[in-house]
Amino acid sequence: MHYNVPAYRLLDAEGLERLHQASLHILVELGIDFHDDEVCSLFRRHGARVDGRRVWLTPDLVEAGLARAPQQFVQLARNPARNLSVGGEHCVCAPVYGPPFVFDRERGRRPATLADFQNFVRLAYLSPYLHHSGGTLVEPTDRPLATRHLDMVYSHIKYSDKAFMGSVTSAENAADSVAMAELVFGPAMYQQPALIALINVNSPRLFDARMLGALKVYARARQALIITPFVLAGAMAPATVAGTLAQQNAEVLAGIVLTQLLEPGTPVVYGSFMTNVDFKSGAPVFGSPESQLGIMASAQLARRYGLPFRGGGMLTSAKIPDAQAAAESLMVMLPTLMAGTNFVLHAAGWLEGGLVAGYEKFVLDCEILGMLHTWAKGVDLSDEGLALEAIAEVSPGGQYLAAEHTLRHFRTAFYRAELFDYRTVEQWAADGAQDACQRAGEQVRRLLVAYEPAPLDPAIEEALLDYMARRTAGQSHPAS
Amino acid sequence: MHYNVPAYRLLDAEGLERLHQASLHILVELGIDFHDDEVCSLFRRHGARVDGRRVWLTPDLVEAGLARAPQQFVQLARNPARNLSVGGEHCVCAPVYGPPFVFDRERGRRPATLADFQNFVRLAYLSPYLHHSGGTLVEPTDRPLATRHLDMVYSHIKYSDKAFMGSVTSAENAADSVAMAELVFGPAMYQQPALIALINVNSPRLFDARMLGALKVYARARQALIITPFVLAGAMAPATVAGTLAQQNAEVLAGIVLTQLLEPGTPVVYGSFMTNVDFKSGAPVFGSPESQLGIMASAQLARRYGLPFRGGGMLTSAKIPDAQAAAESLMVMLPTLMAGTNFVLHAAGWLEGGLVAGYEKFVLDCEILGMLHTWAKGVDLSDEGLALEAIAEVSPGGQYLAAEHTLRHFRTAFYRAELFDYRTVEQWAADGAQDACQRAGEQVRRLLVAYEPAPLDPAIEEALLDYMARRTAGQSHPAS
Repeated sequence: MHYNVPAYRLLDAEGLERLHQASLHILVELGIDFHDDEVCSLFRRHGARVDGRRVWLTPDLVEAGLARAPQQFVQLARNPARNLSVGGEHCVCAPVYGPPFVFDRERGRRPATLADFQNFVRLAYLSPYLHHSGGTLVEPTDRPLATRHLDMVYSHIKYSDKAFMGSVTSAENAADSVAMAELVFGPAMYQQPALIALINVNSPRLFDARMLGALKVYARARQALIITPFVLAGAMAPATVAGTLAQQNAEVLAGIVLTQLLEPGTPVVYGSFMTNVDFKSGAPVFGSPESQLGIMASAQLARRYGLPFRGGGMLTSAKIPDAQAAAESLMVMLPTLMAGTNFVLHAAGWLEGGLVAGYEKFVLDCEILGMLHTWAKGVDLSDEGLALEAIAEVSPGGQYLAAEHTLRHFRTAFYRAELFDYRTVEQWAADGAQDACQRAGEQVRRLLVAYEPAPLDPAIEEALLDYMARRTAGQSHPAS
Repeated sequence: MHYNVPAYRLLDAEGLERLHQASLHILVELGIDFHDDEVCSLFRRHGARVDGRRVWLTPDLVEAGLARAPQQFVQLARNPARNLSVGGEHCVCAPVYGPPFVFDRERGRRPATLADFQNFVRLAYLSPYLHHSGGTLVEPTDRPLATRHLDMVYSHIKYSDKAFMGSVTSAENAADSVAMAELVFGPAMYQQPALIALINVNSPRLFDARMLGALKVYARARQALIITPFVLAGAMAPATVAGTLAQQNAEVLAGIVLTQLLEPGTPVVYGSFMTNVDFKSGAPVFGSPESQLGIMASAQLARRYGLPFRGGGMLTSAKIPDAQAAAESLMVMLPTLMAGTNFVLHAAGWLEGGLVAGYEKFVLDCEILGMLHTWAKGVDLSDEGLALEAIAEVSPGGQYLAAEHTLRHFRTAFYRAELFDYRTVEQWAADGAQDACQRAGEQVRRLLVAYEPAPLDPAIEEALLDYMARRTAGQSHPAS
């Protein structure tokens, strides 16, 4: 998706500079912990002060890191027509990531399986508004933990031809993701990344060993990385928006500097996953006004640094796709797109604070994404758009339905939602008085029946299955 | 509410100028119909070309009208602490206007009564996020049509002390509204308006006799007017956003010029109620991307003219407060506030395309308004907001919950939603697995039980009841 509308500017240049300076203070004076000896040595070699696992950067290191990171890059997809530009005026929407449970109204809430994972790959493949197949769409809890990442990478390739994400559960699993991608993409993937991987920071100010292990593998293979502090203001950051932004910004900058020390020019995305706790329950709140401000300001910081920005999504704490789910999702998603976000993870399917992937929620979110795609096209101010001819044709009090101009635009004029009901209450009641969730459930069934896979070269498929069989049989990673 | 955040700018100055010129073309070359002889004579006296009921303005007349209209004004409330600034960086939220039906989950959909009207006055009075009592909250269909407006004005005064709207159903009913307001506000209301009234344009390009009758009464009494074309793109305007904007803008400008010819300096608001039809059913669509673009551009046009702007609201086609209702409402409301709208009618309670006022929807919308009020406060970038002290205090991987800074902000840090559930799924299920609509229904009952009226001077109440009794007995309007 291309933004043909400007990004919202919450803060002015002075405000952004104030946040930047606060982050530099954190990086230079307070330091960030990296739980990886090799990483700490690397920082030391490049002039950072290091004590144990704590690293204090210098402003020069930050500047140099930012200067090396590309402003925009292309992620390869199995179908080259689906290659994705990440950064600039582009927006990539990817589905929900991480839930161990799934929900649909008929079968309720239950542990996610590989069959669910593959269903969500299919649903993402079928939506024109999801450009990306995502990563851990759900945790396939029926598959062994040790080889689950192989099943997921394979399923993305088998059931979709859209770009996908690599595993970050360990350095070895990351290496498996790279090896399997290479079977599909060949050496071209070291010029333009075929994988993008989500590296979380354990806020406050800590990169753990597991994430650093994966980060090193991807950076050295020149695959794309999203550096995202997982921040709940009030718990893992101060109870203020500005304080949380300052800390998040410092954490992201530290991660970006590291990627560029490992491999200058490696594609990297400025990530934000920032909201606040509910002080009553300690739970995270999604769709809060504080998170809206956070997304808007974070996107501006990323743009200030010339980096692609990841943030937002259709996030909610609701357990079912009700009014709370929709309200919270929109309270996050609209600011996300109005802020000009470049990569939106969790753009469809998220429920219950990310514990659940909802089937009905998934297609409802895709419907809303369709609307937002139309919004992002902006206003056509050409003569044909201004339609003065049509206005002259229709008399005061008259009707445009039969006007020449209307007939010309009839087919394409307005976004047409399939899941939203515009009928009279009588028609709606005669048809069963369904709520949006029920209509969405029917849509899910229709889509999964209609799904036809994108063709996959049998030789590639065989190579993938062979690789998986060897790894499942306990063979060590070919690269290790 | 005060906007401490900047307004979103969808269009640049050139785009706005293009729309302005297109509107001037419509006003000068195509003309607008006014179904009122006195109005047509007035236009002719001021140099407009008039033929029958069609009026062609000149650019000078438009400029002069815009120069006379105030940029901002204060609407009086019975409680002076609730007087409202309309325009500039202020935002007034008012409840739903016009539905002949009400809905709640327990009793279903049914014709609205005066008891419902008074309930909604109470609910609006109790919400800190509705600054205004509104107008025709619902049509009290159990009261005689001829005197219904008296019941409504009285109920606003009796059950609330917030500002309210006058009747526009006829010139006489408008005069009743003014007379009853004068019993409360005295002659002060001719310095600062005590009433605001909603004048719809019958798009395309037509002001009908009924609306002009009411408009004349209010303008001559220096009460505030909102000039709002009711425009569905594809039916009452071209099937393009730009064409609809150009026509709407011409219609609003014509109405504003008229108000300033009638009474220079009369407060007037640039109104927009613009969306599109669903070409499949012919029904209006709410929350469409086209309407989002419309709101954003309309707000910019109003600002360009230095006029307060009315637009948006929590609009939906849904019949019940489900995911569709919430999604559509947010798809309108968030752009409304991000566009810097000054007066938001239908900010709570709207269902089913405006045919229904929903009880649960009303309080759900108020919850969302509360969040948006917090958003509008923006980011505190002071030292206390940046919280570098707190960040220094908490070690990497540590916890902010017990930090000094967190304790200082604990009470006020984050907006706390009452109707949204943040608990675990187990807690939620143990408590009945309620959806947002069920929780909202309980909130409605709690609020109506807890309601206590704002005190009303018995002498004023007696005067109002006496006035209504005389008018109901068939006495002619005192002023006529």
